[in-house]
Amino acid sequence: MTGRQSVTWLRVRYSETDQMGTFYNSRVLEWFECGRTDFLRMIHLPYAQMEERGVFLPIIEAHIEYRGRARYDDQLRVTTTAALSAHARLRFDVSISHAEHDAPVARGYTVHAFTDSSGRPHRPPEWLIDALNDDRS
Amino acid sequence: MTGRQSVTWLRVRYSETDQMGTFYNSRVLEWFECGRTDFLRMIHLPYAQMEERGVFLPIIEAHIEYRGRARYDDQLRVTTTAALSAHARLRFDVSISHAEHDAPVARGYTVHAFTDSSGRPHRPPEWLIDALNDDRS
Amino acid sequence: MTGRQSVTWLRVRYSETDQMGTFYNSRVLEWFECGRTDFLRMIHLPYAQMEERGVFLPIIEAHIEYRGRARYDDQLRVTTTAALSAHARLRFDVSISHAEHDAPVARGYTVHAFTDSSGRPHRPPEWLIDALNDDRS
Amino acid sequence: MTGRQSVTWLRVRYSETDQMGTFYNSRVLEWFECGRTDFLRMIHLPYAQMEERGVFLPIIEAHIEYRGRARYDDQLRVTTTAALSAHARLRFDVSISHAEHDAPVARGYTVHAFTDSSGRPHRPPEWLIDALNDDRS
Repeated sequence: MTGRQSVTWLRVRYSETDQMGTFYNSRVLEWFECGRTDFLRMIHLPYAQMEERGVFLPIIEAHIEYRGRARYDDQLRVTTTAALSAHARLRFDVSISHAEHDAPVARGYTVHAFTDSSGRPHRPPEWLIDALNDDRS
Repeated sequence: MTGRQSVTWLRVRYSETDQMGTFYNSRVLEWFECGRTDFLRMIHLPYAQMEERGVFLPIIEAHIEYRGRARYDDQLRVTTTAALSAHARLRFDVSISHAEHDAPVARGYTVHAFTDSSGRPHRPPEWLIDALNDDRS
Repeated sequence: MTGRQSVTWLRVRYSETDQMGTFYNSRVLEWFECGRTDFLRMIHLPYAQMEERGVFLPIIEAHIEYRGRARYDDQLRVTTTAALSAHARLRFDVSISHAEHDAPVARGYTVHAFTDSSGRPHRPPEWLIDALNDDRS
Repeated sequence: MTGRQSVTWLRVRYSETDQMGTFYNSRVLEWFECGRTDFLRMIHLPYAQMEERGVFLPIIEAHIEYRGRARYDDQLRVTTTAALSAHARLRFDVSISHAEHDAPVARGYTVHAFTDSSGRPHRPPEWLIDALNDDRS
């Protein structure tokens, strides 16, 4: 992965904990979303604008490795990269660690198709390919 | 409140707990929604169909009293009633208790406006008023 | 309310939207929590530390007025104040509006008891009363 | 996989939808949890009791393939199997489809470690191994 990466900071909300005292497992996918949102904003293609232009990125696959605990109010650093992959897919790789002492929390990826608003497949738009390529150096 | 009431059974999900060991406070609003869904199904007006007919019920007010704890996997009973109120509002009153021993968990209400799909105010449709009235006896 | 207020900035997550295209109603209680967290940090009593000291603030009542829509990625401003009320309760008043153009989104309050870790009532600790009073001027 | 499978029925909650009009991606992990809960109840080892006996099953890996849309109030069937795997891991395989017409919604797995309440590794207890084996025939 040679492209740039975005960095998102967030704090674990109480609503994101569970009775084991760490974050509930599904919250990681919500934090991955925060990473994707900030990555796309960084390359000047905010996802809200993409949907307004009729391009949707429904998720088709997700993988998560849980690597450590995090408690309420812990500050986390979410690092995100993205790449076009085969078959017109967009893949985001995300890594989450503690902001304070760098201990790993979770990492994984999500794979997204390109569709229009009704869910029909769509070619990756040129402006998105360009933005992803501009992003590399 | 003389109308019928719907009863919904659900179990507390692990995802709904928090580090205090009971359910997280916002989950009650999600359980209230389960109650509304079942109430409207009971009077033969499933909310999914209402939205298909162009009638939306956005929430405009919510009130919750938290009355007791509930733990993961506890079975809860959600009792729901509904009534049209002044100014073309629909109010649902919901009470949640433990299925096993009847101890109270939460109670409260939500108030809903009638709108079309774009959020513009809408008169309460006759078929909804009729269904709510048929419901009483 | 003469005390200071904390201000929290957050963006609506995609996970917080629903099929009506605005935020789902229960998310407001999660944003209220973000407000409480930042308020307590502002007066140098982070809630995570309070729990470590054995003081818990379980919610006993919540009220929300929904005042406007907010979409994915909209930036919101959450303003929070707090006051001790009768019967050893702590009440937080929270107001949420659009950061960009100030349109209202939601407002309301939550009321909290003081308990120990097992849920038994607890007097409001002196250091909390002092911190709340220091906060006024 | 020769063991028995549990079947869980659930309806998509409005709170689980997002502005794309289908369920939000992280909800699948919450539905996987519903599947695990019912599987463990089926083999007479309710997870709530396992935690009371000091055995925790923190998640260490998750994988999801998203295979189709599901809308508010759609009824889903969640099918769950489980197997002990290498290195003292417990793996649950879960498949979610529409109850009415059997169209696929999602499938995947979660992998869990065995720990005590403080997160320290724990051997899989004999009674759990026995229960999983009894489950096969």
